[in-house]
Amino acid sequence: MFESPTVDSRLKGSEFRKQSLTLRRELLQAQFKLAELDYPVIILVAGIEGAGKGALIHRLNEWMDPRGIETITFWEHSDEEESHPYFWRFWRKLPPRGQIGIFLGTWYRKPADAFLKGRMKRKEFDWHCHQIESFEQMLHNDGALIIKLWLHVSHDTQRRQLEENAPEKEQIPRVAEQPDELAGNYKKRLAIAEKLILATDTESNPWHLIEAEDRHYRDITAGNIILAAMCDRASTGLPPEPPVRDMNTAGPGTRAQPKALDTVDLSLVLDQDTYNRKLKKYQDRLQDLIWKAYRKKRSVVAVFEGWDAAGKGSAIRRVTGAVDPRLYRLVQFAAPSDEERAQHYLWRFWRQLERDGRCTFFDRSWYGRVLVERVEQFAAEREWQRAYNEINRFEEQLVNHGSIVLKFWIHISPEEQLSRFKERGAEPYKRYKITPEDWRNREQWPAYEDAVNEMVNRTSTSHAPWTLISGNDKPYARIQILKTFCKTIKRALDD
Amino acid sequence: MFESPTVDSRLKGSEFRKQSLTLRRELLQAQFKLAELDYPVIILVAGIEGAGKGALIHRLNEWMDPRGIETITFWEHSDEEESHPYFWRFWRKLPPRGQIGIFLGTWYRKPADAFLKGRMKRKEFDWHCHQIESFEQMLHNDGALIIKLWLHVSHDTQRRQLEENAPEKEQIPRVAEQPDELAGNYKKRLAIAEKLILATDTESNPWHLIEAEDRHYRDITAGNIILAAMCDRASTGLPPEPPVRDMNTAGPGTRAQPKALDTVDLSLVLDQDTYNRKLKKYQDRLQDLIWKAYRKKRSVVAVFEGWDAAGKGSAIRRVTGAVDPRLYRLVQFAAPSDEERAQHYLWRFWRQLERDGRCTFFDRSWYGRVLVERVEQFAAEREWQRAYNEINRFEEQLVNHGSIVLKFWIHISPEEQLSRFKERGAEPYKRYKITPEDWRNREQWPAYEDAVNEMVNRTSTSHAPWTLISGNDKPYARIQILKTFCKTIKRALDD
Repeated sequence: MFESPTVDSRLKGSEFRKQSLTLRRELLQAQFKLAELDYPVIILVAGIEGAGKGALIHRLNEWMDPRGIETITFWEHSDEEESHPYFWRFWRKLPPRGQIGIFLGTWYRKPADAFLKGRMKRKEFDWHCHQIESFEQMLHNDGALIIKLWLHVSHDTQRRQLEENAPEKEQIPRVAEQPDELAGNYKKRLAIAEKLILATDTESNPWHLIEAEDRHYRDITAGNIILAAMCDRASTGLPPEPPVRDMNTAGPGTRAQPKALDTVDLSLVLDQDTYNRKLKKYQDRLQDLIWKAYRKKRSVVAVFEGWDAAGKGSAIRRVTGAVDPRLYRLVQFAAPSDEERAQHYLWRFWRQLERDGRCTFFDRSWYGRVLVERVEQFAAEREWQRAYNEINRFEEQLVNHGSIVLKFWIHISPEEQLSRFKERGAEPYKRYKITPEDWRNREQWPAYEDAVNEMVNRTSTSHAPWTLISGNDKPYARIQILKTFCKTIKRALDD
Repeated sequence: MFESPTVDSRLKGSEFRKQSLTLRRELLQAQFKLAELDYPVIILVAGIEGAGKGALIHRLNEWMDPRGIETITFWEHSDEEESHPYFWRFWRKLPPRGQIGIFLGTWYRKPADAFLKGRMKRKEFDWHCHQIESFEQMLHNDGALIIKLWLHVSHDTQRRQLEENAPEKEQIPRVAEQPDELAGNYKKRLAIAEKLILATDTESNPWHLIEAEDRHYRDITAGNIILAAMCDRASTGLPPEPPVRDMNTAGPGTRAQPKALDTVDLSLVLDQDTYNRKLKKYQDRLQDLIWKAYRKKRSVVAVFEGWDAAGKGSAIRRVTGAVDPRLYRLVQFAAPSDEERAQHYLWRFWRQLERDGRCTFFDRSWYGRVLVERVEQFAAEREWQRAYNEINRFEEQLVNHGSIVLKFWIHISPEEQLSRFKERGAEPYKRYKITPEDWRNREQWPAYEDAVNEMVNRTSTSHAPWTLISGNDKPYARIQILKTFCKTIKRALDD
């Protein structure tokens, strides 16, 4: 792949100045147009050490309007980054719609480095490639324009450039420690890069290889690629999306969903004494387990969903009542802020995740995409259709990182809901809990029922299964939830 | 202060249940009212170990609506927290307007612990008290309702509660290491708490001492204090602000400001050859110095302000051109997002600060408050008047933490501005830089001149002085800025 340049990859200074003037003008125009459009541009600048990544980034910043462009670099990782799933660090730096983010040090870095140093087996490397591909595909589906640049230099050029920049290089601690390491592994690094590039060079998010022997040629070529990609997208829009693939079900559009909710026995009850006894028992047990999880640096991510008035709030309180306030955070969701709306819908959930060893409890969650956003048509059908897969991958990343994921749907009958609505209306300090929206949602019961059944069918995975809770009897529901917490956390810690 | 309770601080279970029902109802009502109001509520729960802080927090969460309340705990600090000025960690967790934040582990923790362990001298301790007082006063002036609760227990009760909770306690690493430390230092801890409380018990942000021997009494008392404070504020609003004190000037309202801008000699120029030579020289020097600062973990915070078309952007590029992209971030400011508008105006700048050893370059900054917001009357007079002092304290915290702060005002003449506006209009790829707003601002030149002069006079402090740059000749301006960077960083590192 990196064999021999087939084009003349040199450019004279005078020619460069002429071309860069036109290019700059056009890049600026493309940038202003972007500000009015509804997607972000993500530029990845990759290549081996000495390929001139830093110099190219300086150039791009010189050419473009600094308003609306940000360079995002990853090299020294903070412990907050290390104590979250790998992609968290990238999620939190993604540019909002209408803006450009230039990434130096990308999501490709970890598999490349770890594989080179023999710290990662081929299987895990492949898994990473797959994660990268689906991360980029997901951003692409949401509208992001991803421009991936690989700067290629010969071994000789790399050596020369590393030497030329030596005074600066010495000041980078990582490099100073092993001065020969970078140039020495030239062939091996290229071989790994080739693997990564081939595995992630997709139709939606292709790689662009740039001969970077000559800095003028490198900068003009990179600029032209960026310009062409931006103009192309601005004029033709997002290409039609390939049909959603999902291994868990017979595929989208399958209307006849197995009715998971019908399997819930709503007649189950618990008497007050048994409830009190079990509440104490499981809360004590949960308290111990949460501390154990903390010591093992395992985080707990729990999602509470359910019908209005199903008793989510009071069930959550029975859980948090057993957890030291220092170990958990309860997240509620109101309407997204404008910063959140300027990102992929999963962004606002990623940003809430607590560090390893802590618990994040979600009172409503990313499942809103396939529930309320589906039913109320806030999301287009293709958006919520692909969300099943996005959610499964998101949760897979959590679990793969060591998080313990729990998902509860608290089920009640429509009759039970009605009687609770009425009761709430009568009780002054509960009245706030019932809004006109609740009554409107109630009219949509059958549509929600379909959505819940499909959600459970398509997102109940082996790594993150749904637990359907029989909720007509609140004490019974609470104990079931506490018990599931204990069982799931214990099993995960024993593994 | 903590001598003997003068009231009967016990409450029977039946009485508690009765009172808590009423209290809960009223707290919820106060909370709904708050959601419509334009300020946050910050509840600090403080007290020695074993005073029941965690239990009280559980109770408050049980009583109030979880939507719009968040518990924020500080105990294990991440390296991101450690590598920012002390208050950064609190700033990033402040509740937005209309919401409640309960803090466990507050800004009082560090001085209390460090003083107890002899790691902090009295003078520094006093400085911290002063910082806390002005932090709280600043939030208060912005509308925040701060409710500070100190839970007091006797030595016996503390010992008993620590023993009772022993199984849980053992699981907290910090406590397990030195099991006797907490109870053992009872008297000394109380003495320090007394100092802290007395130093920070202000009219705006008073402390509330709660006898916490009995958990029922403790919870009801805390709930009543919170309720009273919330109702009081909701009905009477923010009390009138005391007059702004500022030691740097003769005081606000003094119209005759020394005219700092008049001292700038706008005739200074640099020929192209000298410019090229000096540019190379100072960029090389700056590159070295920034790496040195990185190794010494000193961050650089630089503010660029100036007239429209003064050449901020191109000057910044000459600076960033000398800095490794991994070491700096350039921050631009558009209109604040809704998350930013829901906070104190300094919040959006605090959140942008890079970690120790990195540079943050601000293209426009917190000085907008006393420039555009003053001139355009986006901020009320009392708001921008008190901003001088808030800004001075903010920068003082940066410098005290080890940051190197630079502030540039690039000055040009109105004639020079006009000719640049015209030139920009003619050049296609520069046309984007000139907007109708620029022309409008130009009409306000005298008002801005007043604002700039007052800004320079009142915020040019010994720790963070302004540098006024003669900007009619761009080469001259750029070299002055680079030179100031080199000189300031070198001096700071040599200290």
